[in-house]
Amino acid sequence: MKTVDLNCDMGESFGAYTLGRDEEVLKHVTSANIACGFHAGDPATMRRTVKLALAHGVALGAHPGLQDLAGFGRRDMDISPQEAYDLVVYQLGALQAFVRAEGASLQHVKAHGALYNMAAKNAALSEGIAEAVYKVAPELILFGLAGGELVKAGRKIGLRTASEVFSDRTYQADGSLTSRRQPDALITDDRESAAQVVRMVKEGRVLSRQGADIAIEADTICVHGDGAHAVEFAQLIRSSLEQAGIVVQPIGQSLAAQ
Amino acid sequence: MKTVDLNCDMGESFGAYTLGRDEEVLKHVTSANIACGFHAGDPATMRRTVKLALAHGVALGAHPGLQDLAGFGRRDMDISPQEAYDLVVYQLGALQAFVRAEGASLQHVKAHGALYNMAAKNAALSEGIAEAVYKVAPELILFGLAGGELVKAGRKIGLRTASEVFSDRTYQADGSLTSRRQPDALITDDRESAAQVVRMVKEGRVLSRQGADIAIEADTICVHGDGAHAVEFAQLIRSSLEQAGIVVQPIGQSLAAQ
Amino acid sequence: MKTVDLNCDMGESFGAYTLGRDEEVLKHVTSANIACGFHAGDPATMRRTVKLALAHGVALGAHPGLQDLAGFGRRDMDISPQEAYDLVVYQLGALQAFVRAEGASLQHVKAHGALYNMAAKNAALSEGIAEAVYKVAPELILFGLAGGELVKAGRKIGLRTASEVFSDRTYQADGSLTSRRQPDALITDDRESAAQVVRMVKEGRVLSRQGADIAIEADTICVHGDGAHAVEFAQLIRSSLEQAGIVVQPIGQSLAAQ
Amino acid sequence: MKTVDLNCDMGESFGAYTLGRDEEVLKHVTSANIACGFHAGDPATMRRTVKLALAHGVALGAHPGLQDLAGFGRRDMDISPQEAYDLVVYQLGALQAFVRAEGASLQHVKAHGALYNMAAKNAALSEGIAEAVYKVAPELILFGLAGGELVKAGRKIGLRTASEVFSDRTYQADGSLTSRRQPDALITDDRESAAQVVRMVKEGRVLSRQGADIAIEADTICVHGDGAHAVEFAQLIRSSLEQAGIVVQPIGQSLAAQ
Repeated sequence: MKTVDLNCDMGESFGAYTLGRDEEVLKHVTSANIACGFHAGDPATMRRTVKLALAHGVALGAHPGLQDLAGFGRRDMDISPQEAYDLVVYQLGALQAFVRAEGASLQHVKAHGALYNMAAKNAALSEGIAEAVYKVAPELILFGLAGGELVKAGRKIGLRTASEVFSDRTYQADGSLTSRRQPDALITDDRESAAQVVRMVKEGRVLSRQGADIAIEADTICVHGDGAHAVEFAQLIRSSLEQAGIVVQPIGQSLAAQ
Repeated sequence: MKTVDLNCDMGESFGAYTLGRDEEVLKHVTSANIACGFHAGDPATMRRTVKLALAHGVALGAHPGLQDLAGFGRRDMDISPQEAYDLVVYQLGALQAFVRAEGASLQHVKAHGALYNMAAKNAALSEGIAEAVYKVAPELILFGLAGGELVKAGRKIGLRTASEVFSDRTYQADGSLTSRRQPDALITDDRESAAQVVRMVKEGRVLSRQGADIAIEADTICVHGDGAHAVEFAQLIRSSLEQAGIVVQPIGQSLAAQ
Repeated sequence: MKTVDLNCDMGESFGAYTLGRDEEVLKHVTSANIACGFHAGDPATMRRTVKLALAHGVALGAHPGLQDLAGFGRRDMDISPQEAYDLVVYQLGALQAFVRAEGASLQHVKAHGALYNMAAKNAALSEGIAEAVYKVAPELILFGLAGGELVKAGRKIGLRTASEVFSDRTYQADGSLTSRRQPDALITDDRESAAQVVRMVKEGRVLSRQGADIAIEADTICVHGDGAHAVEFAQLIRSSLEQAGIVVQPIGQSLAAQ
Repeated sequence: MKTVDLNCDMGESFGAYTLGRDEEVLKHVTSANIACGFHAGDPATMRRTVKLALAHGVALGAHPGLQDLAGFGRRDMDISPQEAYDLVVYQLGALQAFVRAEGASLQHVKAHGALYNMAAKNAALSEGIAEAVYKVAPELILFGLAGGELVKAGRKIGLRTASEVFSDRTYQADGSLTSRRQPDALITDDRESAAQVVRMVKEGRVLSRQGADIAIEADTICVHGDGAHAVEFAQLIRSSLEQAGIVVQPIGQSLAAQ
């Protein structure tokens, strides 16, 4: 029986600012990546989001980012592996405290935005991130781009990992995501997205832009929580997976069952 | 046998900025209050300070403050009890992660600056802080001004507490500290400071500015880590206590022995 | 002929976060208070908002706030008059540069949130703010609560001032706003709001909660730019004023014509 | 008669944190680059530093940096030319207001740290910076690495520029600075530094690491204000220049005399 996890970024509001349709998206996903105050989120939002995710039975993850609130953590910064270690320890700990205060526990860690993207290609940075998670909470599952350096670094240090695929992005022949600077980076047809995702999970394969059919691991699928039809899209992806006989559940449950 | 704890604020450097003579002061104190990134400190400084304190055998505490780096957390802010709860959970968790990453554990929590001072007089704010500590780590000791609201709130919720006295401040007949706006707020003669501290610990009494001799609990004594002669002063306070037959040790050890 | 200015806070978006319906509200107001990056706003938002207000022929004002992005500048902070001076100089200068870059010039300065409210009651703080405006740009008009300390401080130092009234708030017999902690602080009936505003401008009087009819100066009226029906409300206030024969125009035009 | 400007970064303290020996260095330099609150500095420090530089008769410059206080603006960030424009307009305006409040005016703009280094190599980023200065204050002099893109962008848009050389850095055969990652990036012998600087100004030439003697423009020389012997070094550089018959004066005076 095939299983897959459906994750979404959450808790990215800040102070007076609201972002995302967390409450609605939580009905459709199985893992929540909760912002930790560096690229988005704040202590009050973290508390509320942890409670909200728990109320929906969704597994909790820390979503640490670069210290760049003005840029939403999306701008590459030339940080050292040590700096990556430090900012992951800090943010992971901060979120863990809110989770513990509710008597619950975390399932996973997923880096945000530029930190995620830089880590996918940078082994040293990935090792800093993986070490941070390992030293703070070795029981957690480290999310990373399927085939990327972060998943490798996680495995190397002894963490359980989840290979992540994207529901609305196209792939290159080498397994990397097509750069957003390319015109064909995004899949704009929802049914095409759903079909690609179902195939990645069932067959472990995806058709690259170059035409070659390539192997890909798909433990968890990223859906977006903002944008006009985010909720409808999450719902579509989930129902497509379920109609294909795939069990959609938190990655922690799947790994525990192995 | 009388015992007392000697605590000092630590890890208040930030980025390129260095503050305090942590390494030297650590030779003389028994508990370190480590800044958590809101009023001072940053992830790298927190990591280094945790390691440094552990290397000196000094007990570790979280030192959460108001989110006011420009004002070093010294300016009163009209925050709600819920906001106090949130910012303590966040900062406590962040520091805890650095401590856990080193295989160690925290001993205590001491609020910083304006947060400490506001809490001493504000029961609702104190309850927010105490609840934060209790829900994240009920085993920790909550520091607060001797006779103040924070110690009361800590006891009420079920935390162990430590009543704190100040080595270089004068007291009012009601047990409160003389306001820094008063000319006689500070004791400028070091031997007078030492004598006051020794008496507070041995006899549980202090002479107020008004002339009345009042009762005071002195579980832990605050010394400062910056300023020209901070290190020499810490050394003097410690040796004065020891010469008076008082055992200077982390508060956690004293409470465990009771 | 009676004239009045209609002002609204603007440019309070930040990074990835959008707040307010600036573009629509700009059709109905005559002065824009543009956030300057401390309580809200960021350099990119400031640039865009300046251009947008200019395109709508709306007069430009700086809207400096406390350095409290997480609290949207709404939490009182115990800052000194010198600190108030410094933060107004800084923010005013930053906005002025964006205005100058577009070949335009500022009309006014209006403090935001807690800074505005504290200044209304605190003469020393008001003097710090007024001095900042005077030393940087003595030609600007300083907005302040009608009857409050900021207007007094502005006049004292030699600035032109505008007494501000609120369209949706009730008044006390001493001319102050009813505290938001009181149940009757807000006027929830839009037509009642409009009638109060028209009377304040035409007759210079308002009925206080205590029943006494009091004198009030109304040079400029504050309307809000966020909230579900902000745009409709601004439109209603404006048309009510115009139907009452009042000319709605930027305060700078009215003062220049005197 | 040969002239040269001697510039130093200033006002890089922040809140409770002190950095640099501004008051002493000001005795030896002719232009001060004053931090504007993004990578270092804060409103109070800016006010004090402007006054201090004026009291020493030193010309004033804005020293805008990346919004990275934790990294002191030294970490490359992937910002767009538009973002560079925005952050320079903002910071330049903020400093200009403090200068205007003292009845003085700015002389120049020098980008800080990573922003300076990225601009030296990136024409589009440099154009964003140069446009910001030009639109806010076209009379200002734009500093940039001798031979770099920022000086070119400044000239192209119509600004006066100053080519900057470094007193303690070695040069490559293509005129660029030796990367700090190379072992021979720094000149550690003070007399060697002084001799290189004198020759750059008198002859317009410098000996590269590769052995080739290359042409270089030296309108202004950067000395550092922190570090153990910063003051002594500034003094040595100045006296060496003067002993070689070079007039050390603010770049604005030299350009005005041409």
